[in-house]
Amino acid sequence: MKTAVTLTTALLMSLNTWAAGLQHVEPPHWWAGMRDPSLQLMLHGAGIATATPTLKPYPGVRLKGSHRADSPNYLFVDLDISASAAPGELQLDVGGTVLRYPLRARAPGSADRVGFGPKDAIYLVVPDRFAKGPTPPAGANGMKEGERRADPGGRHGGNLSGMRQHLPYIAGLGFTQVWPTPLVENNSEQYSYHGYAATDFYKVDPRFGSNDDFLAYTAEARALGVGVIQDIVLNHIGSGHWWMADLPAPDWVNQWPAYTETHHARMTLQDPYAAPSDRKRFTDGWFVPAMPDLNQRRPELATYLTQMTLWWIETAGLSGLRTDTYSYSDREFLSRWSARVMQEYPRLNIVGEEWSPHPAVVSYWQRGKKNHDGYVSHAPSLMDFPMQTNLLAALTEADGPHTGLTKLYEGLAHDFMYPDPANLVLFDGNHDTPRLFSLLGKDVGLTKIALAYLATTRRIPQLFYGTELAMESPLERDDGKVRADMPGGWAGDSVNAFTGAGLTPVQRDMQAWTRRLFNWRKSASVIHDGALMQYAPVDGCYVFFRHDADRTVLVALNKTGKPVSLPVARFPERLTPTDRAKDVLADTPAFTVGTSFTVPARSPLILEISR
Amino acid sequence: MKTAVTLTTALLMSLNTWAAGLQHVEPPHWWAGMRDPSLQLMLHGAGIATATPTLKPYPGVRLKGSHRADSPNYLFVDLDISASAAPGELQLDVGGTVLRYPLRARAPGSADRVGFGPKDAIYLVVPDRFAKGPTPPAGANGMKEGERRADPGGRHGGNLSGMRQHLPYIAGLGFTQVWPTPLVENNSEQYSYHGYAATDFYKVDPRFGSNDDFLAYTAEARALGVGVIQDIVLNHIGSGHWWMADLPAPDWVNQWPAYTETHHARMTLQDPYAAPSDRKRFTDGWFVPAMPDLNQRRPELATYLTQMTLWWIETAGLSGLRTDTYSYSDREFLSRWSARVMQEYPRLNIVGEEWSPHPAVVSYWQRGKKNHDGYVSHAPSLMDFPMQTNLLAALTEADGPHTGLTKLYEGLAHDFMYPDPANLVLFDGNHDTPRLFSLLGKDVGLTKIALAYLATTRRIPQLFYGTELAMESPLERDDGKVRADMPGGWAGDSVNAFTGAGLTPVQRDMQAWTRRLFNWRKSASVIHDGALMQYAPVDGCYVFFRHDADRTVLVALNKTGKPVSLPVARFPERLTPTDRAKDVLADTPAFTVGTSFTVPARSPLILEISR
Repeated sequence: MKTAVTLTTALLMSLNTWAAGLQHVEPPHWWAGMRDPSLQLMLHGAGIATATPTLKPYPGVRLKGSHRADSPNYLFVDLDISASAAPGELQLDVGGTVLRYPLRARAPGSADRVGFGPKDAIYLVVPDRFAKGPTPPAGANGMKEGERRADPGGRHGGNLSGMRQHLPYIAGLGFTQVWPTPLVENNSEQYSYHGYAATDFYKVDPRFGSNDDFLAYTAEARALGVGVIQDIVLNHIGSGHWWMADLPAPDWVNQWPAYTETHHARMTLQDPYAAPSDRKRFTDGWFVPAMPDLNQRRPELATYLTQMTLWWIETAGLSGLRTDTYSYSDREFLSRWSARVMQEYPRLNIVGEEWSPHPAVVSYWQRGKKNHDGYVSHAPSLMDFPMQTNLLAALTEADGPHTGLTKLYEGLAHDFMYPDPANLVLFDGNHDTPRLFSLLGKDVGLTKIALAYLATTRRIPQLFYGTELAMESPLERDDGKVRADMPGGWAGDSVNAFTGAGLTPVQRDMQAWTRRLFNWRKSASVIHDGALMQYAPVDGCYVFFRHDADRTVLVALNKTGKPVSLPVARFPERLTPTDRAKDVLADTPAFTVGTSFTVPARSPLILEISR
Repeated sequence: MKTAVTLTTALLMSLNTWAAGLQHVEPPHWWAGMRDPSLQLMLHGAGIATATPTLKPYPGVRLKGSHRADSPNYLFVDLDISASAAPGELQLDVGGTVLRYPLRARAPGSADRVGFGPKDAIYLVVPDRFAKGPTPPAGANGMKEGERRADPGGRHGGNLSGMRQHLPYIAGLGFTQVWPTPLVENNSEQYSYHGYAATDFYKVDPRFGSNDDFLAYTAEARALGVGVIQDIVLNHIGSGHWWMADLPAPDWVNQWPAYTETHHARMTLQDPYAAPSDRKRFTDGWFVPAMPDLNQRRPELATYLTQMTLWWIETAGLSGLRTDTYSYSDREFLSRWSARVMQEYPRLNIVGEEWSPHPAVVSYWQRGKKNHDGYVSHAPSLMDFPMQTNLLAALTEADGPHTGLTKLYEGLAHDFMYPDPANLVLFDGNHDTPRLFSLLGKDVGLTKIALAYLATTRRIPQLFYGTELAMESPLERDDGKVRADMPGGWAGDSVNAFTGAGLTPVQRDMQAWTRRLFNWRKSASVIHDGALMQYAPVDGCYVFFRHDADRTVLVALNKTGKPVSLPVARFPERLTPTDRAKDVLADTPAFTVGTSFTVPARSPLILEISR
């Protein structure tokens, strides 16, 4: 990987130059040709705050100034890198020592990269739990927490080598995007495997591999037609982050007279009746004592987080971002952050996590929403928690005027609240939720209905690793068990999802079925951008169509225990008895629809219709 | 009642004039000085369709024309009654016979009447089930269904005389509005008591009393400070309606090749993905075979229903309308209907029934909502089914991130979706829902919490008769039992709600407590128009404040089984330790709040705060 080598060299160069004096230069490098010419370097080193930097003349680059914060050990240096600046190396004299700073050339087409979208299907992996590859990472020694696979909350040793090894499995299942939970360094004493408590924003955790390993992973994924979505945490850091030993300023993190936890009352942000103190508690309260809550109202921190985001996109060739705990960050910062990211990459995608069952709340954050309070967001996508909630209810509740299947139907009808519903990410579950198969009472039919819905409705589908194997978990939240090891990811595993060895008949069936479903979806363009027409559920059966000028797909979900015969006359807009139909999930021959068609008991039916 | 006598005389006059030939002249009279000068008379009589009417010259009134429909027995006559027209009697020559048509003077201030609003509390009665008065109605003989009190679905004999007799009870409870379910004639063979299947839109059902009795009722209510809200049904009629024997046109009701029932899929109206056939089924499908579904796209019918509405408001001096099954009528008709009513009575109130748990659906119909599809409604109020659903869930579900008390909190936060949330009607239950006390597990504390919330949140509260007596019902819908007789409404009842005789201790307590609560609300102006500030529920306790420049009211709802001590520091915006507090529902002396205050176990606490 040429890019990766350059990166490493650059890091070493800058660090070597400053040897003892300068501990951090962030971002470690930047690029010529970004749309926004501004760049603010954070220099961290003993006593550096009093230095007055100068820039060796460099065409198109200007040193705008520098300033310190409270700590004597940070200096913020503002540069202007105009459109005329060529790639090269800046030389910044800081207190008599020269910092050589790489200004790189951007990859061709970088700004115009197309992010993940409705044409895609996303596969979510937890790196520590997916696979331990044959190439052990270098540099993992000295990290605070070691491997302890027997502990559900410990590190199990999954790494980038394993993830890379099994990229073909993910591609083979029909997925075109992979979202790994965070890979950046989480050097904590315990419970460090999940990745959401960064101790270094610019460094892949050595136990997963090096930054180079990550770049190799994204490059290989791209080569297989799989984009990589990076999981970004803007709201908090780990208490072991190097900042915590020497905060640039006391207000770098949200401080409270006594430790105060967020109460997760996210609606304080939309609520016309919210007490200001309650709103502050939501935004500024901490998740847990081990996760200091960042104060993005501090301008240098806001700039830091934004540049960090751009740095990973540009460095690693990402196809998008998943942004953790979206609404918990400062709201005005999020508006500027999302604007800046989309300014640099107008066709990228960002999916925010806003864990609410309410479309009114989730839609608040989507780009283009006309909000009651004038708030403007630039995030193109959100995780569709409301519809995921509806999907589970649809398949577990008795059907009523507003319960059961009607929740799926009425949920989709709420799409008028979203500026761009097709760009929402709908998921079967994630690392924070009990396993789908367990929530559906280990019912294969209901699980297939859920996946068929994911794959055919007007959304971007996301599958949690292992769902294709009907992996199970307790019904109440239990992170360690939800994030169980992918079978076959570890040498000596008796069951192997990747080879199929040792899978139960149910697992083999689910895996093959999932593979067929998502591979079919990959080329079914009418699912990607066709219209949708739905009919109110009747007698436990819900029918909708995807259609465009050339193609029609019928989706029928029968949650009852009996085959249901549906009269074609119920769907006059989209179906006639002389239409031909092909079941895309079965090897049965095409047939003429006739006056009615049958949906098998507790099953989805997906028919390609032609006339 | 002078007004009433005039009405009756007018009716007799017009009917006498036409003796055999003309069976209906509707509206039976009209007024000079309405804002909209147009009036369309429906004349119904054998062979009348071919007549060409002429108007005897009358200053300010012009005969614009007439037309027939399909039936030979209807003639529609269009008049223009300009602002200069004086009250009097029009003489319309129809085929050689003169129809004398009353043009009345409007009551002073009629157009500017102020409808019910946030200052009010509404009491809902089912006339057949509330009280059978000492004055038996005349003219009830010959009606198809007689009295059968032992039958839960039969007529029990409640009437206007009984309703009038017990108006002081309602006023004494602190209510300032009464909503009786429909009183118009429902002359059906069976199940006629509920009133939602009109057989004559212009006539009070003789078993309840005469039109005169109704006018006497509304007049006496007004004298007691109680407004009357009339329940209007625009969507359907009873199959015994006189139209059905001789439809003006086949499309007067929505016709189907085979009987087709609405599937109640109301979201077809907002759903961007709705199949047109599904939308039609919702709007044009019938409720039940005995309730023909009106086609308000038929212009004469639309005019008829609008004029009928105005006629009752003006004739009976109403303070507002409750509109049944609101969204089931033609949507464009509803827009014009509500516009016309509000044009004539700009300060009136109309509350529509849209039985949906979704704020996005209910708010669609409120005046001032900027809808995604451009739909414009002029109805100022809707029944707040979403919040009623939340209230029940809040008190019956375990508290979770989005369940239990949080539903009440997040539900209210959704108020940003409504143009005028304070004008929504929030209810404990109604004639279609199981009884509150039963739904809350016969728990007096939870029931008081629910009523305290109704009475203090930013809504117009509505109570279903008997809730103040902790009346019970099955938990599944059971109309006959939900609409049980009010004890004491019938001579010989062993229990009497009006005198208190025979009430259980729980009933006596609930009744006295409700009386105190709503009488307090009556004068608590900060509840009528003050601001609201809420705090996220913590540990089973939910606190909000109503406040304005002069007054502050604290409402704390403790659903747990233990007293909860709340630190004043949690409410820095609204409370300080030196504030004085008075419990409005207890006779305890005022006290200084201190650093914390206690909310009794499973109880509401309402404190008037002063500094």
